[in-house]
Amino acid sequence: MYKLVLIRHGESTWNLENRFTGWTDVELTDTGVAQAKAAGALLKAEGYEFDVAYTSVLKRAIWTLWHCLDAMDRTWLPVVKDWHLNERHYGALQGLNKADMAKQYGDEQVLIWRRSYDTPPPALEAGDSRSERRDPRYAALNPSDVPLTECLKDTVARVIPFWNDTLAPAIRSGQRLVIAAHGNSIRALVKYLDDIGDADIVGVNIPNGIPMVYELDANLKPIKRYYLGDAEAAAKAAAAVASQGKA
Amino acid sequence: MYKLVLIRHGESTWNLENRFTGWTDVELTDTGVAQAKAAGALLKAEGYEFDVAYTSVLKRAIWTLWHCLDAMDRTWLPVVKDWHLNERHYGALQGLNKADMAKQYGDEQVLIWRRSYDTPPPALEAGDSRSERRDPRYAALNPSDVPLTECLKDTVARVIPFWNDTLAPAIRSGQRLVIAAHGNSIRALVKYLDDIGDADIVGVNIPNGIPMVYELDANLKPIKRYYLGDAEAAAKAAAAVASQGKA
Repeated sequence: MYKLVLIRHGESTWNLENRFTGWTDVELTDTGVAQAKAAGALLKAEGYEFDVAYTSVLKRAIWTLWHCLDAMDRTWLPVVKDWHLNERHYGALQGLNKADMAKQYGDEQVLIWRRSYDTPPPALEAGDSRSERRDPRYAALNPSDVPLTECLKDTVARVIPFWNDTLAPAIRSGQRLVIAAHGNSIRALVKYLDDIGDADIVGVNIPNGIPMVYELDANLKPIKRYYLGDAEAAAKAAAAVASQGKA
Repeated sequence: MYKLVLIRHGESTWNLENRFTGWTDVELTDTGVAQAKAAGALLKAEGYEFDVAYTSVLKRAIWTLWHCLDAMDRTWLPVVKDWHLNERHYGALQGLNKADMAKQYGDEQVLIWRRSYDTPPPALEAGDSRSERRDPRYAALNPSDVPLTECLKDTVARVIPFWNDTLAPAIRSGQRLVIAAHGNSIRALVKYLDDIGDADIVGVNIPNGIPMVYELDANLKPIKRYYLGDAEAAAKAAAAVASQGKA
């Protein structure tokens, strides 16, 4: 039996401002830092040990991992940063306020942008100053492979190959993994691991900074999935995520 | 021509308390954090870019690197942590106060312990609670390869193979490296690169948190070595390091 721990980054400045973030590289708030440290303290108290950590190339996930590892006294663990674990790209909505958009376009349209499985938000123009195509962290990619928008289906299409090619082989080799990532890159993994339908994944919300544990069998099929710590607090935090897109 | 940047970690709690640290995993002070951020801001202002960062498995160097990369907006760079870059092991002196030891044993004895090239401080007992032999970060080593004390010659004997096997090939391949390490692991590199004699290396002191730049030729022979920023401040900080072991 294997254990895998997933952590959505702590609260970011744009979570706090209720703005669509996507690939924009925003910072953690003080609350987000405290959540990350608390996640590490909880993992330490529960006796979790890891051999390697994975995260995205976005600083809210990286700093979450760093604070978490520090609270575990495990700053020295190897960390792999990979863009495949990035948040879903939010297209032309990046930077805009979720509630403002709901007022302007209606709750239903915003829910489609936030949670439709296969309808992406309007794309960024390639020349938009918000586009990441000139960002050096993506220099190893073909510029045309740097997304201008993504629906969850697109995120699944990059996260699952990364699972199959990198994460799953590492777990099978006996490495104990912790992954600090994002609401939608984690939803992509949860959808795949728990075999959740395209329509049902809309109801899955991942709270910030709470370690989610998968117990996996020898074939990496889930036996159990649960949040560490206070289950009620985790459920409340997930419900708060669900309601962010309302006017 | 290649450039290589070395940074000794920012001030640690035991730098502040004037205690021998070695492999003890102490934290940065607030001053140390500020030094690390300032080093990153300076590197950014001077237009430095890196492809990969190296550090030890000790948190004062790791956090120095993390704060430095964050100030450069480069948290996403790959980071390799390796024990070969650790501080010199200080043996049974780890935890003791440098000035107290100077009062007890004399300035000269402490200078020998601090700066003799080939006389190590008294060794830890293998069963000493301060020994790192049961520390999981060294689990890949034979316990007998985890040092119980080191003189600088011993540190050179582990740092230079790491240079030859890992750092130098990376530089030759065109990767731009920043290395956050420790007073003595950096002195070991400086001794080797600048071909400084065993007797003369005693006079080389590395200040905390100031980026040191090597310009290297095609054979990785130094063309120039200098500190970034205020040269006078760097010289004063180095002199302060030199005087730490006096009663």
